[in-house]
Amino acid sequence: MRVAVLGAGIVGRTLATRLTELRHQVMLGTRAPGDPKAVRWARRAGDYGEVGTYSTAVEAATLVINATAGTVSVQALRAVGSDALAGKVLVDVANPVVAPDADPPTLEPVGLHSLGEQIQQQFPRSHVVKTLNTVSPAIMVQPNRLPGHHVMFVAGNNRQAKWVVTGLLREFGWPQDNIIDLGDISGARSMEMLVPLRQRLSRSLGHTNFNIHIQHT
Amino acid sequence: MRVAVLGAGIVGRTLATRLTELRHQVMLGTRAPGDPKAVRWARRAGDYGEVGTYSTAVEAATLVINATAGTVSVQALRAVGSDALAGKVLVDVANPVVAPDADPPTLEPVGLHSLGEQIQQQFPRSHVVKTLNTVSPAIMVQPNRLPGHHVMFVAGNNRQAKWVVTGLLREFGWPQDNIIDLGDISGARSMEMLVPLRQRLSRSLGHTNFNIHIQHT
Repeated sequence: MRVAVLGAGIVGRTLATRLTELRHQVMLGTRAPGDPKAVRWARRAGDYGEVGTYSTAVEAATLVINATAGTVSVQALRAVGSDALAGKVLVDVANPVVAPDADPPTLEPVGLHSLGEQIQQQFPRSHVVKTLNTVSPAIMVQPNRLPGHHVMFVAGNNRQAKWVVTGLLREFGWPQDNIIDLGDISGARSMEMLVPLRQRLSRSLGHTNFNIHIQHT
Repeated sequence: MRVAVLGAGIVGRTLATRLTELRHQVMLGTRAPGDPKAVRWARRAGDYGEVGTYSTAVEAATLVINATAGTVSVQALRAVGSDALAGKVLVDVANPVVAPDADPPTLEPVGLHSLGEQIQQQFPRSHVVKTLNTVSPAIMVQPNRLPGHHVMFVAGNNRQAKWVVTGLLREFGWPQDNIIDLGDISGARSMEMLVPLRQRLSRSLGHTNFNIHIQHT
């Protein structure tokens, strides 16, 4: 698969690295392709990894991952343009945290809307799938770093796009039985609203190597 | 303990019944003490259960449980009055769901505030503890109806009040190791924000006999 990972922060780089290890052709899209962190990433990534602008990355890709900061994601994607993103699977892994240092951290939008829904609304010709925003970058790409059963959610309007994303999650190591489909893209609300819980849990545990499991009969 | 359970809906009656089984002296507070459901409850409850108005129930109690509908809780408690509630442990198990039939259901307040925090703010002399709002009534009072490990959260500003509530949760059957303290009352936000996730999960599972577990290292 040709994948564009937008955002060269820790989430974007972690996803991009894992994707190259799985031998997908990855372009890490960044606002500043000359950025030392991105250049260093490309040097280490080898044959499967390149760095480019958001637009260059999207152009070549069939699957696009939004790993930009949630508060600027819509703006970043708008700069790429809805024509460039049309027909593509657009995986949104961001959380719209406006006050990361507030206690609890606060989200915008929240409640009646979500970032996942906003992106789908702005880019109606793309197939938005929300996933991976509920765990640390390390667990995202290597769920067995955390022993035992724990779950990953997906939400999106397009079933085929969710199948593609579920396939990718399985490659990352998520067991099919631990992947829960929360329905259409408004399921993104549930997933983004886990941010305050995660902050309190990471404070009380002293680390982020945890995740939710759903116990059920 | 003398306990006031405010609200004679399914949540209030389930909690009140369990408390009488545990031989606490319970008064089920209701807007209409002549209401057939409340009268029937009192008849079955035996020596440990009575029915009264919200105010009568609170008067006799050292511990008060708010099991009224989340959208009218502040109003119901205001009618009781802050003097009557002063110095008491006030357990809030409600969710402020304004549109229960919306998909996803929506909360008000949400994001920058929570019902638990609103109640603490309105009744500063009471010791508000948020808990039990994250599971079905059946699991609240009998967590072993759901096999395996799963968690219950508590949040509140007063440590002693949280110890009292934690003791009650243990009586209900929650193992101490599965009770997670989310810190001060603003932890209520995390707990109320689980409503949309629970709705999607109950839709996909087809029942409400599930709960969250936190897997961690």
